[in-house]
Amino acid sequence: MPKKFSYQQLFSFSKNVFIKIGCSKQDAETAALSLLSADLRGVDSHGVARLTGYVRLWEVKRINADPAIKIIHETPSTATINGDAGLGLVIAPYAMNVAIEKAKQVGTGWVAVKNSNHFGIAGIHAMMALKEDMIGIAMTNASALVAPTFSVERMLGTNPIAVAIPSGNEAAFVADFATTTAANGKLEILQRKNAPMPVGWAQTKDGEVSTDAHALKDGGALLPLGGDREHGSHKGYALGAIVDIFSAVFSGANYGPWVPPFPAYVAMPENMPGEGIGHFFGAMRIDAFRPAEDLKHHMDKWIQRFRSAKAIKGQQRVYIPGDIEREMEEVRRIEGIPLLQPVIDDLERLGNKFKIVF
Amino acid sequence: MPKKFSYQQLFSFSKNVFIKIGCSKQDAETAALSLLSADLRGVDSHGVARLTGYVRLWEVKRINADPAIKIIHETPSTATINGDAGLGLVIAPYAMNVAIEKAKQVGTGWVAVKNSNHFGIAGIHAMMALKEDMIGIAMTNASALVAPTFSVERMLGTNPIAVAIPSGNEAAFVADFATTTAANGKLEILQRKNAPMPVGWAQTKDGEVSTDAHALKDGGALLPLGGDREHGSHKGYALGAIVDIFSAVFSGANYGPWVPPFPAYVAMPENMPGEGIGHFFGAMRIDAFRPAEDLKHHMDKWIQRFRSAKAIKGQQRVYIPGDIEREMEEVRRIEGIPLLQPVIDDLERLGNKFKIVF
Repeated sequence: MPKKFSYQQLFSFSKNVFIKIGCSKQDAETAALSLLSADLRGVDSHGVARLTGYVRLWEVKRINADPAIKIIHETPSTATINGDAGLGLVIAPYAMNVAIEKAKQVGTGWVAVKNSNHFGIAGIHAMMALKEDMIGIAMTNASALVAPTFSVERMLGTNPIAVAIPSGNEAAFVADFATTTAANGKLEILQRKNAPMPVGWAQTKDGEVSTDAHALKDGGALLPLGGDREHGSHKGYALGAIVDIFSAVFSGANYGPWVPPFPAYVAMPENMPGEGIGHFFGAMRIDAFRPAEDLKHHMDKWIQRFRSAKAIKGQQRVYIPGDIEREMEEVRRIEGIPLLQPVIDDLERLGNKFKIVF
Repeated sequence: MPKKFSYQQLFSFSKNVFIKIGCSKQDAETAALSLLSADLRGVDSHGVARLTGYVRLWEVKRINADPAIKIIHETPSTATINGDAGLGLVIAPYAMNVAIEKAKQVGTGWVAVKNSNHFGIAGIHAMMALKEDMIGIAMTNASALVAPTFSVERMLGTNPIAVAIPSGNEAAFVADFATTTAANGKLEILQRKNAPMPVGWAQTKDGEVSTDAHALKDGGALLPLGGDREHGSHKGYALGAIVDIFSAVFSGANYGPWVPPFPAYVAMPENMPGEGIGHFFGAMRIDAFRPAEDLKHHMDKWIQRFRSAKAIKGQQRVYIPGDIEREMEEVRRIEGIPLLQPVIDDLERLGNKFKIVF
């Protein structure tokens, strides 16, 4: 059984680490909130397990702990932001707030971001719109691990998309998913078990079909949602491409194989065409389309109808996007957040380095 | 070898049929343009093969040939349109023009549509934005053929998404795809050959895995992109759900299992919560994010880099979304559009009915 830690303990520790690397108190709090939301919602790969990774990026001067985040281009419904190499965990909420302010004025707001870093989970940023009675959208590119349909080369990141839609009495609809068949984290679980990998998750370094969970590690690539051409991988590729273009070609960030890697020890790509990684955010007022109460009423009805769909044998129910993460959060806020021993060791090392009690 | 027909012949014939059912000359031209773009681009299931279907919907009074299309709600960057039960082929370009005009004013424009009908292919509407130096987005819901992850019931349509992005010297990026693993048309090809269907395309009426190409016809369901949970079908389900909600919950159209069917002989769902089917459109000025020339330059670079990715063994190249359809259009404009004999018979019957020479 993995050891469990309270949300408050992990939040305070993370916040103190961000302060130690030079973040303002407010930025450190924002960053810790973004980061811990992943642990709460069950996306363990994007939470405190990455804290050491952020610190290492700061150590090699790829993260600026005190950035001057700036709007560099705008119209009434759009803005482009230069994140000044800050923490994506801080830049993303800033950009989402700009989108929300634009939406208050003209109905919708759309913000492209360059010169940023990893922003944690997309869903939490999209969800910022909910309390404003707005639909929230968040996406980001990431370093290339994914081969487009028919490509041997890794050209795209796992490029997630999140969409949060307010409802009335029901819990909000929150979709948040990578545009690949499976995440790298799932391959790592199979590697530890020495178990085979399902066809359609990853290919070998020569672009061949593989069931070896080490295929990606050995120079292969993850596959776009769909897996292969026969199962629609060209659609997953198109989605990943749209996220890449909206996030980076719109903003002036790096795209495709030029997106900077998360691990600080991996060399940066050569001849990079932009600055940092890119994100894209949107906010739409629900009353920009119809009276808010009407939209919420029908959103409730949509959710109730889908939740009541007859389930296949062996399954309890049909889920609404966001159900699983929300239920996980309810449990973890009370019972604590389980961490694997290597993550605990990592955090203890970080505590020693910065003289903060973990 | 299927017989080929010139674009001009099929365009004139379709236009004349639309005039015969009561469309204005201008609407008939718009509808024929939308319809024929599918045949040109190789999406044979959505072109003249559907002309008789539209006429049947008009015969049962589900299509109004002379609609009063109206904006019923708006903000500077958004509008909601009541299509007055008109042809989706006409309403969609109308709505897209509204989105484009909004984008001219405030940077982006977003339009939800209710009370519409089948709008042909999504891509052609999204592409209207290209000549304005804008990104175009088009999506629509459709009658339920798709089972969400773990659902026995059909709850969603094939709900396509199209995104068109301008470039400089390269051809534009045009993604246009259903949010399912495979389209019904592909199942029909296998049915004719009595060939098995790949796992992940459709399930039986009891929600079981199937390789029988008749599974959908026999009361089963198409599967969301991904195919099953292990291959990420919850992501395809989320995408189809987003299209359904943006198109119908925003606008006041029908959603989920209540979306009206395309075949006029199929009974309408009971207790429908909205009006007609729904669409959603977007237009974003590229210079709303950065100078247009910069964006086009980097879009060219993006396209060139992806096109030059090393291809897997047995494949010539890596495609950019839109390549295949554009190349098809170049061929068919010159060599003509091939039609299957049943489609030719159908069009001849239509010609006899309306006394138009086919």
